Amino acid sequence: MKIIVDAFGGDNAPLEILKGCAQAVDGLDIDILLTGRKEEILRVAKENDISLNRMEIIDAPDVITMEDHAGEIMKSKTNSSMAEGLRRLAAGEGDAFLSAGNSGALVVGATLLVKRIKGIKRIAFAPIIPKKDGCFMLIDSGANVECKPEMLCQFGVMGSIYMQKVMKIPNPRVALANIGTEEHKGGELQHEAYAMLQKTDLNFIGNVEARDVPIDAADVVVADGFTGNMFLKTYEGVAILLLGKLKEIFTKSALNKMAAAILLKDIKALMKTMDYNEYGGAPLMGCAKPVFKAHGSAKAKTFYNALRLTKAYVDGDVVSEIAGSVASYRESHGQESAEDDE
Amino acid sequence: MKIIVDAFGGDNAPLEILKGCAQAVDGLDIDILLTGRKEEILRVAKENDISLNRMEIIDAPDVITMEDHAGEIMKSKTNSSMAEGLRRLAAGEGDAFLSAGNSGALVVGATLLVKRIKGIKRIAFAPIIPKKDGCFMLIDSGANVECKPEMLCQFGVMGSIYMQKVMKIPNPRVALANIGTEEHKGGELQHEAYAMLQKTDLNFIGNVEARDVPIDAADVVVADGFTGNMFLKTYEGVAILLLGKLKEIFTKSALNKMAAAILLKDIKALMKTMDYNEYGGAPLMGCAKPVFKAHGSAKAKTFYNALRLTKAYVDGDVVSEIAGSVASYRESHGQESAEDDE
Repeated sequence: MKIIVDAFGGDNAPLEILKGCAQAVDGLDIDILLTGRKEEILRVAKENDISLNRMEIIDAPDVITMEDHAGEIMKSKTNSSMAEGLRRLAAGEGDAFLSAGNSGALVVGATLLVKRIKGIKRIAFAPIIPKKDGCFMLIDSGANVECKPEMLCQFGVMGSIYMQKVMKIPNPRVALANIGTEEHKGGELQHEAYAMLQKTDLNFIGNVEARDVPIDAADVVVADGFTGNMFLKTYEGVAILLLGKLKEIFTKSALNKMAAAILLKDIKALMKTMDYNEYGGAPLMGCAKPVFKAHGSAKAKTFYNALRLTKAYVDGDVVSEIAGSVASYRESHGQESAEDDE
Repeated sequence: MKIIVDAFGGDNAPLEILKGCAQAVDGLDIDILLTGRKEEILRVAKENDISLNRMEIIDAPDVITMEDHAGEIMKSKTNSSMAEGLRRLAAGEGDAFLSAGNSGALVVGATLLVKRIKGIKRIAFAPIIPKKDGCFMLIDSGANVECKPEMLCQFGVMGSIYMQKVMKIPNPRVALANIGTEEHKGGELQHEAYAMLQKTDLNFIGNVEARDVPIDAADVVVADGFTGNMFLKTYEGVAILLLGKLKEIFTKSALNKMAAAILLKDIKALMKTMDYNEYGGAPLMGCAKPVFKAHGSAKAKTFYNALRLTKAYVDGDVVSEIAGSVASYRESHGQESAEDDE
């Protein structure tokens, strides 16, 4: 398997990315096609004694920064490492593309360069998030601010396939993020999406309240991108607040420091399970070929995890499964539903 | 001052409510008008040796349960303690109404029995929520699932007045909950609300991301009810998850238990600052007279806090301030904006 890697995406590029790739070549038995400034990649690899065994480099002089507008990938930054990687994926030069760069640009670039699976209305950004035990997928978490009911329904289908094929959860519970569990809760979007999800053969368990999601309400939580982003960012914010407050307590006095030292190992393990970077990142669901987003702050280990999940995304044959599911839906519904928005 | 109290709202009615009221009569120097089953109130007070000094009782045979549909307050439950309390408030028999009962029914009942301030489009449910230091108001947190931009603008105005007059925060920072800080973020609702809020004389600081709210992004966070509810419930869910995980760590081994014992006092204090029940509840903003919602699980102390805040709601003259602000807005805008939805 060959994975195309954006060597210049994220806060720690290219050093940490090269480190993660070098580990993955052996650990995951993969080949890698790096995109980015070739000379800099060679220099950094040499300086840090990183082997480039089984790695090929495609020179791409430009870099999309976190501050760039998403659309720049198709305008001023067509020679960027991200655009180049997506083009190579579209051309069949690799099995998947992984970037830790600008999420918005990645969604725009993937949509326009790699295209969507036939019948899929929108590409969704779908992070894997820790819950009480294990994890769940939040789809969409921000790629599509305004959604139609059918998009939400498709998010449910795609999320279910991913959790089954990649995260190995049999018969994933799919739920709609809502402000109450009763069927009539929410607005028009939720009502219509609920009705559509109910008609699928998904294991649709109805509405879930945000309060129950972190405990264990569902394996796939479906939301429009605005709601999903709100959920994700609140999740992060409250975790940051609470862990910050704990730190204050732990360092308040000599006695507290002593007690904290005893608990340190377990607290660190907790913080690790709560850190969604540990899951490596988020797949872009609905692309015609696997595209995966690693967290912007990913270091070598997280990037290695992202490569592992990208490989599983390919191995799970998720794209074909989604394409098949959408095709059979279109057949049984006389194709009427997938024509607009193409 | 006389506060009308729903003696049969919430999980711990009437005992904990009577206890809270008895403390408040002395502690806050208020008179109370209780609504509910008179015989039961008298019996519970007697059995528990609770003084009913400065309390009057209006008999109301019915109770709105947490399971009742909100609309029942105007249909099968017109003789409920909640409906009776709201009618007495409308009739001028008290200065404010406080209930720990069904939030939805309270919003419907307040809208139809107490009415809105002239020009205000919707009553909003606006809890006070702890942040890193102090607290902020989230308005709306669920009363209005679908909102128009002008409603959001009014929420900002009302929230600002409340935080100034009741919570004593000078020049409160008002922000719009959004998925990014840039002006172009979000959907149509956010774009239009942003433009309207910018034209007010509020201390409008623009968009805030949910991640930053728990730290200290703003004093008033404006959202449509769907988004606000999503934020509130996620906040609760993540806090429950993290505190549950901590408890596991603290009881994992004898050594951990010892360490936890040292930290216990500080951890408990943390949990208290993070518990939004401690703030007593949520005002209903936009009613023509002060209506306050205590948390459903309120015990005597929380109910006392709710009475304290209800008193401050009256003392702050919040309703008149809002009415004045809306009137001057209507004057300067030729009244064109407040005619629909009345």
